[in-house]
Amino acid sequence: MKISEYDTVFLSEDENSVVIIDQTLLPGEIKLLKLDSPSAMFDAIKLLQVRGAPAIGVFAALSIYVLARINKDKPLEELRNYLSTQADYLNSSRPTAVNLSWALSQMKALINAENVDNVDNLVDKLKIKATSIRDEDVAVCRAIGEYGKDLIKEGAGVLTHCNAGRLATIKYGTATAPMYLSHEEGKKFRVYCDETRPLLQGARLTAFELTEAGIDTTLLCDNMASYAMQHGLIDVIFTGCDRVAANGDSANKIGTSGVAALAKHYGIPFYICAPTSTIDMSTPTGAEIVIEQRDPAEVTDMWYEKKMSHPDVKVLNPAFDVTDASLITGIITEKGIVKPGELATIM
Amino acid sequence: MKISEYDTVFLSEDENSVVIIDQTLLPGEIKLLKLDSPSAMFDAIKLLQVRGAPAIGVFAALSIYVLARINKDKPLEELRNYLSTQADYLNSSRPTAVNLSWALSQMKALINAENVDNVDNLVDKLKIKATSIRDEDVAVCRAIGEYGKDLIKEGAGVLTHCNAGRLATIKYGTATAPMYLSHEEGKKFRVYCDETRPLLQGARLTAFELTEAGIDTTLLCDNMASYAMQHGLIDVIFTGCDRVAANGDSANKIGTSGVAALAKHYGIPFYICAPTSTIDMSTPTGAEIVIEQRDPAEVTDMWYEKKMSHPDVKVLNPAFDVTDASLITGIITEKGIVKPGELATIM
Repeated sequence: MKISEYDTVFLSEDENSVVIIDQTLLPGEIKLLKLDSPSAMFDAIKLLQVRGAPAIGVFAALSIYVLARINKDKPLEELRNYLSTQADYLNSSRPTAVNLSWALSQMKALINAENVDNVDNLVDKLKIKATSIRDEDVAVCRAIGEYGKDLIKEGAGVLTHCNAGRLATIKYGTATAPMYLSHEEGKKFRVYCDETRPLLQGARLTAFELTEAGIDTTLLCDNMASYAMQHGLIDVIFTGCDRVAANGDSANKIGTSGVAALAKHYGIPFYICAPTSTIDMSTPTGAEIVIEQRDPAEVTDMWYEKKMSHPDVKVLNPAFDVTDASLITGIITEKGIVKPGELATIM
Repeated sequence: MKISEYDTVFLSEDENSVVIIDQTLLPGEIKLLKLDSPSAMFDAIKLLQVRGAPAIGVFAALSIYVLARINKDKPLEELRNYLSTQADYLNSSRPTAVNLSWALSQMKALINAENVDNVDNLVDKLKIKATSIRDEDVAVCRAIGEYGKDLIKEGAGVLTHCNAGRLATIKYGTATAPMYLSHEEGKKFRVYCDETRPLLQGARLTAFELTEAGIDTTLLCDNMASYAMQHGLIDVIFTGCDRVAANGDSANKIGTSGVAALAKHYGIPFYICAPTSTIDMSTPTGAEIVIEQRDPAEVTDMWYEKKMSHPDVKVLNPAFDVTDASLITGIITEKGIVKPGELATIM
């Protein structure tokens, strides 16, 4: 069984459940979860069985459709109230994920739409909306891949950091889209995945999905990126992005700014892969982006059999960092590749 | 019980054993091991119960003295043969550690010296030599600290990578010597320790020993060094060194070259702390230094409860990297601070 045989989130054949790959079991086990109750759907997001902002948004939209379908014996107003309550419930599972609340607000607008006058019509419209949210994610990622793939030359070495891969979207991913599309074309190239401490998304997810897909994939510790660049192993770098400010400063997983500064030192092009929905023209620069500080135990205890330092040591654990626009060669979006200073041309 | 109450390696009060802090149990447990047999001494090095090139050299020299003392009822020639055999045996425990073979060759020269005509005289001379090797390590590290300490200003932030600390020497360490001496003076400053994947010497050893010593110590993942520099937390950087080439290129723990390149990007001074015994004028540049590639399982499996990536993923695991001389502000030795291009002035 391979993760690449499935979309990260999909409808079961009878459309009475949403199916996901349980990401809490990766890389040890690939297991599908069929979900058909609000509590199981809530837990799937809460427990990170499904993760990655785009994937969570699609999951929530498909979940609302499934809940509508399996409750279509309810009278219209009762069903509307039920679905509205469940949408709010799902939205409370991870309040900071923007795509989640965006997708659910789209679904709620339909639930409450005045031009829907019977249950079958409501269920149909919810299906069309949910599948269009899914299809748009696939299309946006594929477009990023189309624009980015020619930056990977035959025989090239590609570095990436964290997971902006298919497991964070429905398929293709963002940073991985140029890799998957190059692989589809039969191009030969090597990918190097930073393991991405402390949560190891690069090791557990990116290196896993690319290896499984048959792409030549090498895992390295974050502090080995300099060695890899110095030894000519890396020709181009792609990472994802959580938020791009109006001036092109980009917040992404902790460590991205260091990769970008090393890329500049070694003269290697560094690209951010980001749907235009990630570009926030209302944030002038990276200085306005607040960085979440996370639990010290992720650094000292998590994954390990025993505590890895002195019990009294202080710990720095920022979840993200901001890469200065001056270090970014280009931002690859579904509308094309733009320089960080020229975002206004596509927004 | 604290590690700072003891030298890393010392003689028991009756001088019938060598005592070490068992470093395989750190950071979980502080336990002293008293060793009085060749096999236990061999295992202590082999199993990394004692580690760090300077500490191993001192340990081997003191071990030969102890073995001489507890076998002084043997006739002179028999004792000489016995000690010579044990010296070769200890030397085979970690063939690549230069200090080990250097210290044992010093001891063997005495064992075979023609001007020694009785057992008591041999044992006395071995004690004087072994303790002078120990005392010289302490003096060299302290001198590095004396030259380096003024680079730490009141209130400064100091970054270090890996463990070039007291646990790798007898006391003071090399990269940590300026910190310990600044702390002795009552100076206030903060130290940031890269955890140093994959073997986590920064977390397990450096952050441990500095925290225990009462120095304000913060642990961070390697990929957070850029964040720390970007946010003005770091004023100066000290690392140890395994070998300095004649042109100043310096091989040290993997990740050091990245720290140095980031330091240049953010305009922060970067110092190598190295006894002159580490400077190898017969190696012209870093390009001639061969980098050891280590077991992939250190990256994918070690420390963890389960495998952390796809079973088929390739792994890059270089143990060291070479920092280009152009990135090094100065090399702090026991003879003073020199620029990487001016090593000939002290050699």
